[in-house]
Order: sequence, then structure tokens, then C-alpha cells
Amino acid sequence: MARRPRRKAEETREDILSMAEQLFRQRGFVAVSIADIAAALGMSPANVFKHFHSKTALVDAIAERHLSDVADRFVAEDLPPREQLLRFVLRLLDSHLEDIQKNPYIFEMVLVSIDAKIEAGRRYREKVIQKLEAIIREGVAEGRYHCADPARAAITVSDVLAGVLHPVLIVKDDKETLVERARQIVDFADTALQNSAC
Amino acid sequence: MARRPRRKAEETREDILSMAEQLFRQRGFVAVSIADIAAALGMSPANVFKHFHSKTALVDAIAERHLSDVADRFVAEDLPPREQLLRFVLRLLDSHLEDIQKNPYIFEMVLVSIDAKIEAGRRYREKVIQKLEAIIREGVAEGRYHCADPARAAITVSDVLAGVLHPVLIVKDDKETLVERARQIVDFADTALQNSAC
Repeated sequence: MARRPRRKAEETREDILSMAEQLFRQRGFVAVSIADIAAALGMSPANVFKHFHSKTALVDAIAERHLSDVADRFVAEDLPPREQLLRFVLRLLDSHLEDIQKNPYIFEMVLVSIDAKIEAGRRYREKVIQKLEAIIREGVAEGRYHCADPARAAITVSDVLAGVLHPVLIVKDDKETLVERARQIVDFADTALQNSAC
Repeated sequence: MARRPRRKAEETREDILSMAEQLFRQRGFVAVSIADIAAALGMSPANVFKHFHSKTALVDAIAERHLSDVADRFVAEDLPPREQLLRFVLRLLDSHLEDIQKNPYIFEMVLVSIDAKIEAGRRYREKVIQKLEAIIREGVAEGRYHCADPARAAITVSDVLAGVLHPVLIVKDDKETLVERARQIVDFADTALQNSAC
């Protein structure tokens, strides 16, 4: 691809991200260098470096693009809170499983993310907690839940869901097992939310 | 160390495990080969190989030694089930945090374990579930819990505890955060167990 000096920085950034993601998926995070990404785009490594100072920063931005989508697209429907919780969890699970299936190096990339404590993971967790809090607040408004502190309850619900939402914990299990586990955990959470002061 | 041809196979196996663990802790799982372990023991690599066919098998056996201890040593005291749950969880958490602190390569080793789906992890999970089931059964006997199926409830409780027990999920958090998270999850589980048919 020829260099186009006048294109906007934002477009360049998006091109770098898309190419980085493609190469990471094809060859893995460890095997692909910033120079490889630059070469595939016909850019200088310095140009890539101007946008992303490290491969970890690239993984962070790639994860951000994927993860923000998933939580944002969930629109709570007019259902009882237990069903809303379950739908939300199954939807996140589906999207994670799809990502895992599409990307043979996902495990490696997730590990890099955890090791580097990337921001995307933290922001994703916050978005999930926000949705959970909205569902819990609806349950309180309906008189089903009795939490004095829905924000705190949402954190606990997100913690108990780690076993079906965290990529490392789901990567080796089959979908049927995970869906059943999700149902059990959501039932558990729904019961706890109905009966505790939280 | 001189070779002692008449020593028992079991002793040799234990020596190999101890040396492998020491070297993995010092230099990491990836950096240490079976030949390195053999050399440090003054054995032939073939002799090590006779006992362990791969580095993964060594990690499995090392994990088994550590993990079986932790769950087995917990003796339920004469306390209400909620307190027993909390003590058990905090004890496991402490032991995992100690292992993480002592072993700079623990993250790498845990990842190898997950990737290889080693048996030690599965057996450890089963032991934890057994202890949880015993505590739940006591709660049922006391009339506090109302689970028709304590075995299944124990699996769910172990699943909701992943966020404070799974090494990958705790390795980047500080102890205070984890202890608080453990308390919240145990309260949640205790409430669910009191109020659901499980």
C-alpha cells in the first residue's frame, strides 16, 4: 500500500489496529513484531510507533474495540431481572466463545493482557458491572431485589460470574458445560439478590 | 550427587520432583529442560524420562503435591456453615497467595497447566468441591440450608468462588481486595444456600 501523507491520524490508527489484529490472529502475538505490522501496511516502523508505543498498547486497543461493542450492544428488554441477567451473561459468553473460536492465539493474547494488566480489561469489567447494576436497580424498583447498595451488589455479581466470563476460565470448557454453569450461577445470584440486604 | 542404583524408584521420583520444582521456581518452566534437571541431580536424562515423560507431567506432579495438601489439611471446626465456608476460602486464598509470592514463575506455570489441562487442577477442584459439599451438608443437617442436591450446590459454590481461588484471577490483585471479595462471595453463597432449593 502506498503511503498517503494527508490521511487523518485516526484512519492510520485504525489501519494499524486492523492489520495488527489480522497478523496476531494468523501468527500469534509473540511472533509478530511492530516492524512486521509496519511492513504489511507499507509504513515505516517509526510511523506505527508514533501511534502505539508497544505491542501491549496494540493488544489493549484491539481488546477495547472488541469488548466495548459486546457490553454496549446489550439492550435490556422488558423481562424479569433474572431473565435479563441470564440473557446478558449468555450473550457475553457467546461473544467470548466466538472470539476464542476465531482466534487460535486468543489464549496467548489474553495472557499478555493479564500480565500487562491492560486497561481494556478493566474498562470492560466496568461496563459489565454497569449493565449488571442497571438490571439490579430494575429488580429493586420492581420489589424483587432488596439491595441497599446495587453498585456493590453488581461488583459481587460480576465476581461470581468470572467462571463463565473470564476468557482463561472458559477457553478449555465446552459450550454446553458453560451454558449450564451460567444458568446455575445466575440462579444463585438471583436468589442471593432477592434475599440479602446486599 | 552420586548415582545410587539401589534406591527405590519412589525416592528417585521425589528427588526429581523436588529438583524440578526448585529449578522451575528459580528459572521458569520454559527455560529449564529435562536435561537440566537430570544434570542437577547427576542423573541421565533417560532416567528422568523413565519417571516423567514430559515437563508437563512434572508440573502436574508438582501441582498435585502442593494442592492436595491444602484442601486435605482443612478440618471443619464447630462453627456455623457460613463461617466454615469463609475460613476454608480464606485458607485456600492464603495458601495460593503464598505460592504466588514464593514463586516468580507461578503465572507461567499455571498457564502451562491450563493449556495442558493437567489432571492436578481437575483433582484439586474435586477436593475443594468435596469440602464444600461437606460444609453444605452440615448446614442442611442444622436446618440452615435447604438444598435437595448438596453435591450440585457445591459445584456452583466452587464456580462462584473462581474469582478468589483461581490463580490467574488472583495473581494481579492485592490481598486486601481479595479478602474483601471472598467475604462478599461467601455472604452471597450463604444467602443463596439458605433460600434456594438448589
